[in-house]
Amino acid sequence: MRILVVNVNTTESMTEAIGRQAAAVASPGTEIVPLTPLFGADSVEGNYESYLAAIAVMETVRNYPEPFDAVIQAGYGEHGREGLQEILDVPVVDITEAAASTAQFLGHKYSVVTTLDRAVPLIEDRLKLAGLDARCASVRASGMSVLGLEEDPDAAVNAIVAEAAIAVAQDKAEVICLGCGGMAGLTERVIERTGVPVVDGVAAAVTIAESLVRMGLTTSKIRTYAPPRPKTFKNWPLSSVPVLAGQA
Amino acid sequence: MRILVVNVNTTESMTEAIGRQAAAVASPGTEIVPLTPLFGADSVEGNYESYLAAIAVMETVRNYPEPFDAVIQAGYGEHGREGLQEILDVPVVDITEAAASTAQFLGHKYSVVTTLDRAVPLIEDRLKLAGLDARCASVRASGMSVLGLEEDPDAAVNAIVAEAAIAVAQDKAEVICLGCGGMAGLTERVIERTGVPVVDGVAAAVTIAESLVRMGLTTSKIRTYAPPRPKTFKNWPLSSVPVLAGQA
Amino acid sequence: MRILVVNVNTTESMTEAIGRQAAAVASPGTEIVPLTPLFGADSVEGNYESYLAAIAVMETVRNYPEPFDAVIQAGYGEHGREGLQEILDVPVVDITEAAASTAQFLGHKYSVVTTLDRAVPLIEDRLKLAGLDARCASVRASGMSVLGLEEDPDAAVNAIVAEAAIAVAQDKAEVICLGCGGMAGLTERVIERTGVPVVDGVAAAVTIAESLVRMGLTTSKIRTYAPPRPKTFKNWPLSSVPVLAGQA
Amino acid sequence: MRILVVNVNTTESMTEAIGRQAAAVASPGTEIVPLTPLFGADSVEGNYESYLAAIAVMETVRNYPEPFDAVIQAGYGEHGREGLQEILDVPVVDITEAAASTAQFLGHKYSVVTTLDRAVPLIEDRLKLAGLDARCASVRASGMSVLGLEEDPDAAVNAIVAEAAIAVAQDKAEVICLGCGGMAGLTERVIERTGVPVVDGVAAAVTIAESLVRMGLTTSKIRTYAPPRPKTFKNWPLSSVPVLAGQA
Amino acid sequence: MRILVVNVNTTESMTEAIGRQAAAVASPGTEIVPLTPLFGADSVEGNYESYLAAIAVMETVRNYPEPFDAVIQAGYGEHGREGLQEILDVPVVDITEAAASTAQFLGHKYSVVTTLDRAVPLIEDRLKLAGLDARCASVRASGMSVLGLEEDPDAAVNAIVAEAAIAVAQDKAEVICLGCGGMAGLTERVIERTGVPVVDGVAAAVTIAESLVRMGLTTSKIRTYAPPRPKTFKNWPLSSVPVLAGQA
Amino acid sequence: MRILVVNVNTTESMTEAIGRQAAAVASPGTEIVPLTPLFGADSVEGNYESYLAAIAVMETVRNYPEPFDAVIQAGYGEHGREGLQEILDVPVVDITEAAASTAQFLGHKYSVVTTLDRAVPLIEDRLKLAGLDARCASVRASGMSVLGLEEDPDAAVNAIVAEAAIAVAQDKAEVICLGCGGMAGLTERVIERTGVPVVDGVAAAVTIAESLVRMGLTTSKIRTYAPPRPKTFKNWPLSSVPVLAGQA
Repeated sequence: MRILVVNVNTTESMTEAIGRQAAAVASPGTEIVPLTPLFGADSVEGNYESYLAAIAVMETVRNYPEPFDAVIQAGYGEHGREGLQEILDVPVVDITEAAASTAQFLGHKYSVVTTLDRAVPLIEDRLKLAGLDARCASVRASGMSVLGLEEDPDAAVNAIVAEAAIAVAQDKAEVICLGCGGMAGLTERVIERTGVPVVDGVAAAVTIAESLVRMGLTTSKIRTYAPPRPKTFKNWPLSSVPVLAGQA
Repeated sequence: MRILVVNVNTTESMTEAIGRQAAAVASPGTEIVPLTPLFGADSVEGNYESYLAAIAVMETVRNYPEPFDAVIQAGYGEHGREGLQEILDVPVVDITEAAASTAQFLGHKYSVVTTLDRAVPLIEDRLKLAGLDARCASVRASGMSVLGLEEDPDAAVNAIVAEAAIAVAQDKAEVICLGCGGMAGLTERVIERTGVPVVDGVAAAVTIAESLVRMGLTTSKIRTYAPPRPKTFKNWPLSSVPVLAGQA
Repeated sequence: MRILVVNVNTTESMTEAIGRQAAAVASPGTEIVPLTPLFGADSVEGNYESYLAAIAVMETVRNYPEPFDAVIQAGYGEHGREGLQEILDVPVVDITEAAASTAQFLGHKYSVVTTLDRAVPLIEDRLKLAGLDARCASVRASGMSVLGLEEDPDAAVNAIVAEAAIAVAQDKAEVICLGCGGMAGLTERVIERTGVPVVDGVAAAVTIAESLVRMGLTTSKIRTYAPPRPKTFKNWPLSSVPVLAGQA
Repeated sequence: MRILVVNVNTTESMTEAIGRQAAAVASPGTEIVPLTPLFGADSVEGNYESYLAAIAVMETVRNYPEPFDAVIQAGYGEHGREGLQEILDVPVVDITEAAASTAQFLGHKYSVVTTLDRAVPLIEDRLKLAGLDARCASVRASGMSVLGLEEDPDAAVNAIVAEAAIAVAQDKAEVICLGCGGMAGLTERVIERTGVPVVDGVAAAVTIAESLVRMGLTTSKIRTYAPPRPKTFKNWPLSSVPVLAGQA
Repeated sequence: MRILVVNVNTTESMTEAIGRQAAAVASPGTEIVPLTPLFGADSVEGNYESYLAAIAVMETVRNYPEPFDAVIQAGYGEHGREGLQEILDVPVVDITEAAASTAQFLGHKYSVVTTLDRAVPLIEDRLKLAGLDARCASVRASGMSVLGLEEDPDAAVNAIVAEAAIAVAQDKAEVICLGCGGMAGLTERVIERTGVPVVDGVAAAVTIAESLVRMGLTTSKIRTYAPPRPKTFKNWPLSSVPVLAGQA
Repeated sequence: MRILVVNVNTTESMTEAIGRQAAAVASPGTEIVPLTPLFGADSVEGNYESYLAAIAVMETVRNYPEPFDAVIQAGYGEHGREGLQEILDVPVVDITEAAASTAQFLGHKYSVVTTLDRAVPLIEDRLKLAGLDARCASVRASGMSVLGLEEDPDAAVNAIVAEAAIAVAQDKAEVICLGCGGMAGLTERVIERTGVPVVDGVAAAVTIAESLVRMGLTTSKIRTYAPPRPKTFKNWPLSSVPVLAGQA
């Protein structure tokens, strides 16, 4: 089975890191294909970049030339998952929801520790729409920027551990979700230092995508995620634009 | 004061209809500027087109060459409002929220009557995120497509009235919101035939935008809608792409 | 258009202050008529006085001899709005709801800063009934009494700013609502010192009332706010009582 | 122990009926004192009359010349209970809340069957504020007016039974609350014909009031229901008005 | 009337204490029968022991040889009440729900102070299922174990008072529920020291059980709590096992 | 890896059916061990049997003599999962939660179709506690008893399909969960006839359990599911009782 794991930002090194994390948990027969969006910001840290990433991820997946069995959107609290579900017949798994769903099997309440404070409301909104907020004790910001996570993993671990500790002690979280695709790889060190289960969204999403494929389940096409109706588009898709078409 | 009223689809005749509706309720000193997105679908009826519209509306507003005092996103249940709030310093009003906020001053419960059934979950999700769902009795689909509204207004009125009547009788709605930018102009006829107040989102949004400007209020920049952080973009913005840049 | 702005307490100087605040934001063609209740407490700071104010406001409006286009109930978290909606054909706007509705267009979460701690549950209850609680980060008390606001505006500003700062930093509010009709006039100074948008309920209510009138919208009469059924009253209305009738 | 059971409307025959119902369930040592408000409507069927009743009930209880141990407000879905809790040191029990609290011990979900459709939103609002709505399957209107209940008890029973049957079959209610003080006395006949437990709010309130007194519990005075602060009143209380003072 | 008050743990001295507390509030004609489960843990402080207690309480009540009018399950936040309601025709009252229902008549918000931190989520879950969580300000742990309460009542009072004070000051609770059957008897001393009403679940349950019996009300048998269907059991009931049968 | 899949009732043929369904989806290296409880009812259709099953499942797992990596509780809407999480170090997955969690990745809303009407409230309660109710459109009863499912699979399919069709058309479900462990094996036929994805809880639970093990995740032991504290038990465990001990 082939699973596309799509980064939401255009920093190749993060795509690679996400790909490694995905591959580490994938089953023997699973091929992980990490993809970087055709356009967009080097890091996604707000609604503007996130909306841009939403459409970039969709175009990138549309332009992927080989067949695939599932798609993972590897951005925490980002827009776009519903669009992917519409345009694809294969299962789509968002890492925000994958992490929360998994955390709920491990403890009474879970918290998310993410990057910047401004990402918190986006994650809260995604969890609310996904119906996964009732057992969310808190979403906390470590204060690290997305790119800062890569530049200084030690500082990242320290900042994340500090917030995780508050989430456990004050908010009564029993599980921690690492709230950023870029945190892939930090899981083990965080577990070591907090003593509670730590869920990495990328790993969780891979297992869920594999499971859906194995069970022969995919997105319901009966209502919300029915295929887009035929439309006349103006100046779209980007593949008709020379500069971008050449990148595909 | 100048208010940009941005259509979410690329059908010029709908932009004009929305503009007329906005102008009809605007105060004497207000200039309404109707805008059609630079790219996207001729009608928005699902998440894919809606996400595309989100970014198209943002780019279109960014490319508008004159100063303006407020922006109205004239699409019902569409994505993107949070992005506009980030990139702009002036107030942003979404017609879905404008209609619901206004309806809540008029009755105990309100219902939304929209176009196709597939639009219902999108509107429900927008209302939930906006915290305007507690008094929403129902979101009902008239079965008319967005373009069908323009092609056959009589059939549209009939279909909308039929659902509005059920919303009032069964769901206990006391106010009806017309759930589509393209329904602008049908308000009076629907009021005539249902006997309950009918809120048009475009009109409601114009009065709210004017009010915010008059009170000197605009989007809080302290957290969720802080300006985007400086980023390096790949293949973006579209204005750097010759084909689209020529259209602007 | 003529808008009655009804104070909930019987302190004339507060009526005047509220009237000035309303007039400052009103459109050129709008006449603001500030009214003091015919009976009741000099300040409303609890359920007993609030229920009394509810009926006093209704009687006062009923006794107003000229036609009018809308009514604003200028008390924060007070009882009575539903009764006014029943007995009147024109729009009724409560400042608690006007402020919250307006705040929701400006930020992800808002907080209310009010007078005494005992007013907090009343405001929370009003927001819950109005379906405007989902995005309310907190209702905080400044500890100032209603009359204290008038006696010592500098202390009031200081106390309000202190709580607003906590609301922003701890409760993650992005907008502050001034939770007392008597705070009318303090808005600008609070904005200056907090850096987040500050909504004055009286101003917000005036713009909403004007907007509803302009759109030709008024309270739905189909169910909850249908006109009172014909009744036989004992010892009522007060206008039949000489002492009060003479005051009208 | 002496319990005041205060009717919300001024129809003496209903006060008597309520008093009989209360006395039927009262313990041997309990004296039930039925009271009719000093002023107000002959029947309460909307917010206007309900707000008037709120203040009338408070004045009536204040004017009661003997000591008492608890007060029951015998109106379904009416305003005012919070005010009584403020001005009194003894327990206050509202029949709407008494019935719902009791029903929750008897089945998974309960429904309320009330009089007119316009009373439904008032009852829903009271239950929501009381935190007793989560297990409320529905509030249904029998279509009988308050006075109609007294004029034609057989028709009342039929209408109530019809709605109760729908509540059980469709809304999955397992218990029925009789949603009107005026329904006191119909309980047994409704039980006979529906087969599910039927709770009369007056009876439930009497047992709860007695229980609170027996346990030495009364309203917390620490915050929401602290005694009213000293105020200067204009044209109030009514006892200073000759016409009403003579009635007391 | 005879009311069985069933301890959830097998410590006889706690059964006696609970019985005394129940008897102290019972009406003259009420016989309180305290029962200790036939099997199970000496103290219940977690899900494992609680599930065991659930079935032990049911078996113990089934084996009680005399007729009875109501059953009280005297464990705070424990499993099993729904099962008792199924197998019995008489009313069943859980002390967790009895305390919360009673507290809601006394203040705007209530808090529960219980034993160990690990009991908190169990109590929160019970309140959520009972629909009694909306007005629960907090559930707080005193850190005392169940048996510790008995061994050192003074330390227990101190620990409970400390948490109650935080609940009142920070969580805005206006009423305190003593969240453990083993706290029976501490009520008065806690009231003395906190100044807010303190509800003991055992006392509250006795008055509610008596009230239901007096009103002729019992569990609805129409759906959720219909009698168990006829089943073939393997190795059950325990009364067929010699060792236990000998104990009954 | 070895996964125990524990039936909640004592009907061996159902254990076998559940085991086959689990094995069908299990990964190559996974050994599925189906277990029948040591005691309890032949079918679980209510709270009494469910509570008994809760403790029976725990004892059965405790008595299993070999090491294992995860446990699946294969009963829909049953009690006991929290207890298993306490007494075990390996992941515990309940099929009710597994199905709902999986369904949420496939559509905007899901419905559960279960056996008897009396099971509906139990399932609703489990989903509420699990925080998986927000996107549950409905829980519907097919009217088939648990054993009836096995006796007449064709009638079962028909009854389930009929309710699923209503769930899709009226309740707007986009995914169906088969709400009974005994429905294992009917999945494919139901998918064929409804056109929407159908989730079997047993299959979903197996993939989730495998995923948790693969990621090295297990129940958080920090609070709610900490190991039981040391206790003195009376007449327990059953393994000390000769009759039952002989069965183990």
